[in-house]
Amino acid sequence: MTLPYRAVMAAVGDELLRGIVSENNASWLAGELFKLGWRLEAIEVLPDREEALFDFLRRWIDEVDLIFISGGLGSTPDDKTRSAIAHYLGAPLVLCDDLFDKIVLRHPEETRPYLENVRSTQGAVPQGAEPIFNPIGTALGMRFRHNATTVVVLPGIPWEFRAMAEELLRQLPRGDRYSAQIVVVGWLEMDLKEKIAELVVGREESFSFLPAPNSVTLVISGEREDVEDLERRVRSLVGEDCLSSGVSSLPQAVIEEAVSKGFTIASAESCTGGMVGEAITEISGSSRAFLGSAVCYSNESKENILGVSREILERDGAVSAPCALSMATGARKIYKAHLAVAITGIAGPEGGSREKPVGTVWFGVSGLGEDKAVELHFSGDRQTIRRLATTTALELFWRRLKGA
Amino acid sequence: MTLPYRAVMAAVGDELLRGIVSENNASWLAGELFKLGWRLEAIEVLPDREEALFDFLRRWIDEVDLIFISGGLGSTPDDKTRSAIAHYLGAPLVLCDDLFDKIVLRHPEETRPYLENVRSTQGAVPQGAEPIFNPIGTALGMRFRHNATTVVVLPGIPWEFRAMAEELLRQLPRGDRYSAQIVVVGWLEMDLKEKIAELVVGREESFSFLPAPNSVTLVISGEREDVEDLERRVRSLVGEDCLSSGVSSLPQAVIEEAVSKGFTIASAESCTGGMVGEAITEISGSSRAFLGSAVCYSNESKENILGVSREILERDGAVSAPCALSMATGARKIYKAHLAVAITGIAGPEGGSREKPVGTVWFGVSGLGEDKAVELHFSGDRQTIRRLATTTALELFWRRLKGA
Repeated sequence: MTLPYRAVMAAVGDELLRGIVSENNASWLAGELFKLGWRLEAIEVLPDREEALFDFLRRWIDEVDLIFISGGLGSTPDDKTRSAIAHYLGAPLVLCDDLFDKIVLRHPEETRPYLENVRSTQGAVPQGAEPIFNPIGTALGMRFRHNATTVVVLPGIPWEFRAMAEELLRQLPRGDRYSAQIVVVGWLEMDLKEKIAELVVGREESFSFLPAPNSVTLVISGEREDVEDLERRVRSLVGEDCLSSGVSSLPQAVIEEAVSKGFTIASAESCTGGMVGEAITEISGSSRAFLGSAVCYSNESKENILGVSREILERDGAVSAPCALSMATGARKIYKAHLAVAITGIAGPEGGSREKPVGTVWFGVSGLGEDKAVELHFSGDRQTIRRLATTTALELFWRRLKGA
Repeated sequence: MTLPYRAVMAAVGDELLRGIVSENNASWLAGELFKLGWRLEAIEVLPDREEALFDFLRRWIDEVDLIFISGGLGSTPDDKTRSAIAHYLGAPLVLCDDLFDKIVLRHPEETRPYLENVRSTQGAVPQGAEPIFNPIGTALGMRFRHNATTVVVLPGIPWEFRAMAEELLRQLPRGDRYSAQIVVVGWLEMDLKEKIAELVVGREESFSFLPAPNSVTLVISGEREDVEDLERRVRSLVGEDCLSSGVSSLPQAVIEEAVSKGFTIASAESCTGGMVGEAITEISGSSRAFLGSAVCYSNESKENILGVSREILERDGAVSAPCALSMATGARKIYKAHLAVAITGIAGPEGGSREKPVGTVWFGVSGLGEDKAVELHFSGDRQTIRRLATTTALELFWRRLKGA
């Protein structure tokens, strides 16, 4: 095989094709492989049917260096991956008692009889395949080679898949592709393209533009030296709307900015219901700057907890500039934070009116400069509007902290 | 084609294979098709390369009734879907000025010049294909038939994809499969399998078990009469741990239970940082019962906002039974709610100790019965622990409301 190293992944499970569970292992693996300089050629979601897996293997074996398969390693008849691999290899399933005993011994005595029920399925791999220990769950994984292709089969349960895949990824050689990501906040894709057009012309293959709500992520890939040079030039053209190098998300940028300057932050949320708090606290170490978020969904709680006056609530309503401002100053006060951002809006699908249609969101900013209120109108379904409002609140935090 | 109707979907985009953007359109579409009684045979994520799309079309055209393709309809050279389809059909791209003019006129005058730059790409479809209007963005979709297969191509941007797909789904005939979902809370997959073994034997194909943190979703599918009969029998065997028919998630169950009994609820969150509030407020109409959530990440805010005593914080620490209880009673008081649940724990990866390792989470319940504190230990990464804690808090709400 020639560089870059190439891989494909199949996620197996009827539930994934029925929309009952969404497939996230592949997306995570894609990112890990990309960081290692590998190229992922395709992701396929397949049903629990042997023929579908055979067809997948026939198409990709000898085409790529590495095949990942996840799912279908449960202990019931609807789990077909283990037997499909055995049939594909024309090999019987053999018990791996050494490894499975380790799994049994990890469990308390009273649950061990259950585990014995699944030994004959989850503790077996086809003869000739190498079993892979499962540090969390009960199903063993497996690995085998076919000519130049290695096939790895892991459980689909996300935390098991991730733990086992991480171990395997550590053993992979690194590819020769280098890449850099630049997150540009508050820009539209077309504006960014126009701004850096001179860099892109003739090198279109090196640039990917990934629009997200409220930002565009630019990925530059190729030889390390070129990528570093292009990154420098993009940053100098675009200026201060870029997140710092190595910072891949707004919450991370908010926390790094606050921590480096010694500021504390808090929020007050109505329609986002806790999404701002969640986004920030997903960052490990966020407690160094983030104090909390008062989710005040009812008008009474806006009044009692944040100190929004009844006059504002009755005269201007909960979705208004005075209420957003008052929520922000209230949050800053009760959390004793340097900076607070408040969000109050109508996420729908109900609750809109002619003056304040669904998608109307008011933001309040208090601290580290003059207090201000900002009104925006978003379109989309309830969850889209809430996500857009959350990203906007994070942007408001970030800009105010940067300017402070 | 014979029933059930069959479909496949391809999501096109290098960014999806690099883990920079996760693919959610397919999962959503899968659920919609399943509800219509259709069978989704596969989901494939493909790179922005014509040959990959040709290979996909060659494999699936004439095999299924409907092919969905999303993505790669941007206006830059890395977007290859439009030209790939034109090459596949051997037809030139033709401008659809009527439809594209409607898109231009929707925009304010000052941004129209930008739109003219993309007319020649996003306003064109291959001759013979039928253009599909985009009610939100700028790229037209397209549709064409090849023998018995209909191919639909839509933009990958989620809100555009969804709006355009919804319109198409309304025109589809319904399949003959019927299905029912039963969510069983607090059970392990193996316990549920054992409990309903007598129903499953000989009908394995009708049952899917979908384990989730803290619950198992059982999907029964087949002929309507059989499914309804099996659902009744499962519910009578499993008993009160099943969510009601038609209720597919714990947040929905919590809100329905609270609203039907006229109770109000609130929460206090530390390590979950707002996830409980977010999960509940994702339900439209949650404001009829949910008052808010005090996200108190810092010790000072637990003291100042929730009234946790300094003595508790110093003697027992923030992750303890007394603190969890005091947070719950505090939240109940400041929100004037009938019931409050509090969460305080160590999500990691830092902050653990020998006595309180990462994954230790205390829950407090106050109202509608005796106050209580519950300790649980979760394993996994930061986000997994937070998710497990969130689900547990929702379960505590639900059980207390059910018993009230």
